[in-house]
Amino acid sequence: MKNTFGQSVCVTLFGESHGEAVGAVLDGLAPGIPVDEAYIAARLTLRHPYGQIGTARREADAFRIVSGVYRGRTCGTPLTVLIENADVKSGDYPPGRLRPGHADLTARMKYHGFSDPRGGGHFSGRLTAALCAVGAVALRALEARSVRVGTHIARCAGIDDAAFRCPEEEIPLLNTLPFAVLDEARGKAMREAIRRAAEDGDSVGGILETAVTGMPGGVGEPWFDTAEGLLAHALFSVPAVKGVEFGGGFALADMKGSEANDALCLKDGRIVTRTNHNGGVNGGITNGMPLLFRCAVKPTPSIRREQSSVNADTMREESLIIEGRHDPAIVHRARAAVDSVTALVLCDLLALRFGTDWLRGEEA
Amino acid sequence: MKNTFGQSVCVTLFGESHGEAVGAVLDGLAPGIPVDEAYIAARLTLRHPYGQIGTARREADAFRIVSGVYRGRTCGTPLTVLIENADVKSGDYPPGRLRPGHADLTARMKYHGFSDPRGGGHFSGRLTAALCAVGAVALRALEARSVRVGTHIARCAGIDDAAFRCPEEEIPLLNTLPFAVLDEARGKAMREAIRRAAEDGDSVGGILETAVTGMPGGVGEPWFDTAEGLLAHALFSVPAVKGVEFGGGFALADMKGSEANDALCLKDGRIVTRTNHNGGVNGGITNGMPLLFRCAVKPTPSIRREQSSVNADTMREESLIIEGRHDPAIVHRARAAVDSVTALVLCDLLALRFGTDWLRGEEA
Amino acid sequence: MKNTFGQSVCVTLFGESHGEAVGAVLDGLAPGIPVDEAYIAARLTLRHPYGQIGTARREADAFRIVSGVYRGRTCGTPLTVLIENADVKSGDYPPGRLRPGHADLTARMKYHGFSDPRGGGHFSGRLTAALCAVGAVALRALEARSVRVGTHIARCAGIDDAAFRCPEEEIPLLNTLPFAVLDEARGKAMREAIRRAAEDGDSVGGILETAVTGMPGGVGEPWFDTAEGLLAHALFSVPAVKGVEFGGGFALADMKGSEANDALCLKDGRIVTRTNHNGGVNGGITNGMPLLFRCAVKPTPSIRREQSSVNADTMREESLIIEGRHDPAIVHRARAAVDSVTALVLCDLLALRFGTDWLRGEEA
Amino acid sequence: MKNTFGQSVCVTLFGESHGEAVGAVLDGLAPGIPVDEAYIAARLTLRHPYGQIGTARREADAFRIVSGVYRGRTCGTPLTVLIENADVKSGDYPPGRLRPGHADLTARMKYHGFSDPRGGGHFSGRLTAALCAVGAVALRALEARSVRVGTHIARCAGIDDAAFRCPEEEIPLLNTLPFAVLDEARGKAMREAIRRAAEDGDSVGGILETAVTGMPGGVGEPWFDTAEGLLAHALFSVPAVKGVEFGGGFALADMKGSEANDALCLKDGRIVTRTNHNGGVNGGITNGMPLLFRCAVKPTPSIRREQSSVNADTMREESLIIEGRHDPAIVHRARAAVDSVTALVLCDLLALRFGTDWLRGEEA
Repeated sequence: MKNTFGQSVCVTLFGESHGEAVGAVLDGLAPGIPVDEAYIAARLTLRHPYGQIGTARREADAFRIVSGVYRGRTCGTPLTVLIENADVKSGDYPPGRLRPGHADLTARMKYHGFSDPRGGGHFSGRLTAALCAVGAVALRALEARSVRVGTHIARCAGIDDAAFRCPEEEIPLLNTLPFAVLDEARGKAMREAIRRAAEDGDSVGGILETAVTGMPGGVGEPWFDTAEGLLAHALFSVPAVKGVEFGGGFALADMKGSEANDALCLKDGRIVTRTNHNGGVNGGITNGMPLLFRCAVKPTPSIRREQSSVNADTMREESLIIEGRHDPAIVHRARAAVDSVTALVLCDLLALRFGTDWLRGEEA
Repeated sequence: MKNTFGQSVCVTLFGESHGEAVGAVLDGLAPGIPVDEAYIAARLTLRHPYGQIGTARREADAFRIVSGVYRGRTCGTPLTVLIENADVKSGDYPPGRLRPGHADLTARMKYHGFSDPRGGGHFSGRLTAALCAVGAVALRALEARSVRVGTHIARCAGIDDAAFRCPEEEIPLLNTLPFAVLDEARGKAMREAIRRAAEDGDSVGGILETAVTGMPGGVGEPWFDTAEGLLAHALFSVPAVKGVEFGGGFALADMKGSEANDALCLKDGRIVTRTNHNGGVNGGITNGMPLLFRCAVKPTPSIRREQSSVNADTMREESLIIEGRHDPAIVHRARAAVDSVTALVLCDLLALRFGTDWLRGEEA
Repeated sequence: MKNTFGQSVCVTLFGESHGEAVGAVLDGLAPGIPVDEAYIAARLTLRHPYGQIGTARREADAFRIVSGVYRGRTCGTPLTVLIENADVKSGDYPPGRLRPGHADLTARMKYHGFSDPRGGGHFSGRLTAALCAVGAVALRALEARSVRVGTHIARCAGIDDAAFRCPEEEIPLLNTLPFAVLDEARGKAMREAIRRAAEDGDSVGGILETAVTGMPGGVGEPWFDTAEGLLAHALFSVPAVKGVEFGGGFALADMKGSEANDALCLKDGRIVTRTNHNGGVNGGITNGMPLLFRCAVKPTPSIRREQSSVNADTMREESLIIEGRHDPAIVHRARAAVDSVTALVLCDLLALRFGTDWLRGEEA
Repeated sequence: MKNTFGQSVCVTLFGESHGEAVGAVLDGLAPGIPVDEAYIAARLTLRHPYGQIGTARREADAFRIVSGVYRGRTCGTPLTVLIENADVKSGDYPPGRLRPGHADLTARMKYHGFSDPRGGGHFSGRLTAALCAVGAVALRALEARSVRVGTHIARCAGIDDAAFRCPEEEIPLLNTLPFAVLDEARGKAMREAIRRAAEDGDSVGGILETAVTGMPGGVGEPWFDTAEGLLAHALFSVPAVKGVEFGGGFALADMKGSEANDALCLKDGRIVTRTNHNGGVNGGITNGMPLLFRCAVKPTPSIRREQSSVNADTMREESLIIEGRHDPAIVHRARAAVDSVTALVLCDLLALRFGTDWLRGEEA
């Protein structure tokens, strides 16, 4: 499998940045789930560049559902979203010019120079639009079963956001924000830092933190198809993600067992943990607490500064300046993709555990 | 898939800590690869508790290869390693007693009380012995193609090891050390801290850092089966791993693009990067630089201190003290498992990319 | 996995008969393979109804390649074909009316009434158009490595075609024929029988026989992912296929071992078999002889005669006459789909065995 | 995947005929299912040679469950069965000697001479013992949900058995018979024909017919993971199976649509079909009628007659006589393997459709 992920609920991603279209096929989702095109459109805007800090390329992301929906509900058969590429400047793409930090060199090694080099081709962040479109359908399906996903920019350009305090309440709010922070004052400082980096011809990175509430316990298929393993697998597909940690994550390395263990207690007749350093997962299986994980997002590799590189056609070292429209940060845009792959993986895990009808909700 | 991982080269893991045996099936590895039982035995000792700091359970880990090897070489058919459980104290395991930080609660949610509770059952670190046995075969296969894997304890109990300087030279050395550090003075300090935690009835965590040299470029199957995604997926199966990061990882979140991008240059006629903040992977595909990643390992959940818990049979809160033999740290033992899953994933990726014969080496 | 098949080379199928479009994503095929749109168009006409014997629905099958091809060659990234549905009569589809022999009842059982019922929806033979489009790309890739696939109507309406004598020569010819028979006189008789059945308001079935020449030996992944198992798995996806047999197939049941065993001999320095009762496969692995298999195709279930049925909405028995445009036979049309899934499975098996570059041919 | 099959419920097969052991890992089966060792033993005897007509190799097939069962019930974790090889005559196996009709040539092509040649190695029918052991567990799980599987020898040496009339009643009976026929008089004639073939130094083939009752409707994952496709895929793994057909199968090719379509009617408030020419499957999804399929089993390739062959070491043509203990027929022994893979595939499909707990039965 290459561009397909999932076992019971699967997604297949296709397209190139400056080709005819990008798109995704969402297969195996339960039948009868309402598909709300306005909601999909809203989710797509969440991955748009924000305010003054983004790329000049502005696309309506006009999507078309070409299969799998009948009378406003999922059929249970493959749901395909197609997003035609508009606003494509067919510039000059000397394929030998390798942009540092991008997939130019590695695509060349793998595809022997035949992959579409225009705008990053198949490796463009543009494909996350398709991912977000089908992710929106998955998010809605989860919501109907009271499973909610939300992500905030936990850190950007060295500035920390506030921490989650009550994800149940914060997630709905986050999902309305174009720049998703829990403390808007910190968000403003982050955007200011992004703007300064842009003025410098540079870019910044950040950390995304995701919470999932309402997730049933007992979900995950260890040893290998653990909740953590499957989520991490998919999250590393989001461009620029270079690290994934659950619960306390790397900070757990410095804790004592007596701190890191989440003490168990009873609450409303259910067994819960007092803390959540394990991020809602033990032994690869969900424990009924909120899932909590963080993704490291590297700074956008496309910068306006001069960089040392090699021309793969001439095999000569040469310096390079990347012209054109670029984001000085993608961490705030990557948020929508992170929500989407999270929703897709959870739908898959839930369908595997409880059957393909479970996501239909009350009737199932 | 639950206990099977891989597409072309696959591993299946089975067994319970206090059942009859643990074992693993390694399928799809190229035929003709020498299988050296002494080397497997040596790898198994690397996951043993070290010196005074480990659990009292000492097993010979006597393994038996019951299929897939003929005249000292792999057949190409499933290679099965069986490790009978010896030294099993069949104590009293009240299944309702939930140990914080363990899989007791989640196993109960998933298996409805039918899973073997003795010694953690299927969720015991004991199963990593089987993983290390087949991992040893995979490591040897990679070595014959000049791909080498090595891991050091980058941090433990708050103490940092030295960084990799020249993995080509450091990896062979690390693979001989029972407590794998690049700077033995720091290792001594770590062990001292572990001992102190043990005296406190507590435990500590750490970070493992892995380097892979000799990895060909162009390997990885994006969007989803990226080198990073597949490695992370498998690494999260190693008990206690709660975070995985590649190259700069979470530190990239604080870098500028101009720092994080790895400038390209020529060296001996090959295109290489001057730095390796991307950990040898761009766009999910290897770039020919060393793979570099780190795993966060949480402190051992089994501690001798009193902990708050719930008895799932009586559904009453009760405090709990875990008696018996336990490790005050597992980070140094997890190292062998990390090397093993790394080798298994790389064999799979290489076989997918270059065919099932590639790992046979010269003849292929 | 539901609508995705394959491991290294995969196809994903989507769409509904009377929805917006049908399509397919072909992923994992080697980069650099020439994509000839005229050839794809020609393959699509092979699945069209023939002459006077087919359905009245005539579609241009205007396809669009929306991803994965750059400058006339495969990129190595997902190749997506989209076929918009034209000529769709949006008639009245009382979803409760269950057509015998169709998937109406079973789709209802699985999708709870939410699947698109119009024209068979996702279960329409219309989706084989998308399969044939991507199958054409796979067929061309195989041809460049001298692997050739061809299918003839071995039997239809009780009339046998001649047998393959020299597939190397017959396959190219078959691939030009709209009604693929080795003996055109028998073909004429078959078409006459089809016409008579149509006049009766009835339909007929048949048997397709496929030969593959140039297939390398040593391909197939037993025990489970055998050449036979994977081909059969995919062939049963072709609508109306109810049986698959390799080599002598069911006739082997009546042979003696001394007849059925294919004696081995040398020819031009290669080990070959004198007969080919095993259809080119032993132990699930190709032996270098032509692959030979046959598919049973049931008569088209849509007939103009009155049939006993049940209305699932009213849960009352009622008789039913299927109006509209229907094929009195699909065996001649199914041929193109059989060729296509065969090519896709073989590309997958070859890429697994020899690596993802093998199909690139000489350069690899 | 090579020796692993299934998605939610998976089996992994390992071992060689004359190696240390053969075995199987059954993963993903619901927890809490009673495991009856006596029943497993009984199922293993069903694949033994019968009376005077079988091979001289008689093994107790002493199996050991080394994981996944605790207090007599499945844990939900991998259940591993190990069967040590006893009664192994370590004869002289000149690996270059290729037995016609066997996997000797193809194993050599795939494994380059490294696979274990003794007694067919990994390709020996001996591995079906392991398949039958885990298959027995799966059969029992299905029975607890009223899904029953039974197979009879529909044809052997040209002699037909009676047809299924009432599978509900016939299946339990068949499962007690060492030579599974519905009409014992025909069975006697078959055994007589087998004996005659043996006297001739020859062998015979046959056809196995399987019925499954109690199968819920709505199960199967089209387009590709259809009930038919998955069953066929797995059935072709049973050694000597060369054809698989569902319902009318190849006979459907000669029927008219008006005959082949199964008219629908109501029975006890459920929608059923009057006939079952489609074998319980439409559009790849079960329809609630009994599953019905047939497997063609070729005559045993090991015969005592002189055969033309090639020595792959010397690359010279030479004739060959296979000495030793061999079956003049395996069709009656293959029955147990067919039942087993059927049960394993159905468990997988049911778990995918209804969740991993469904097979636990009443409690789920």
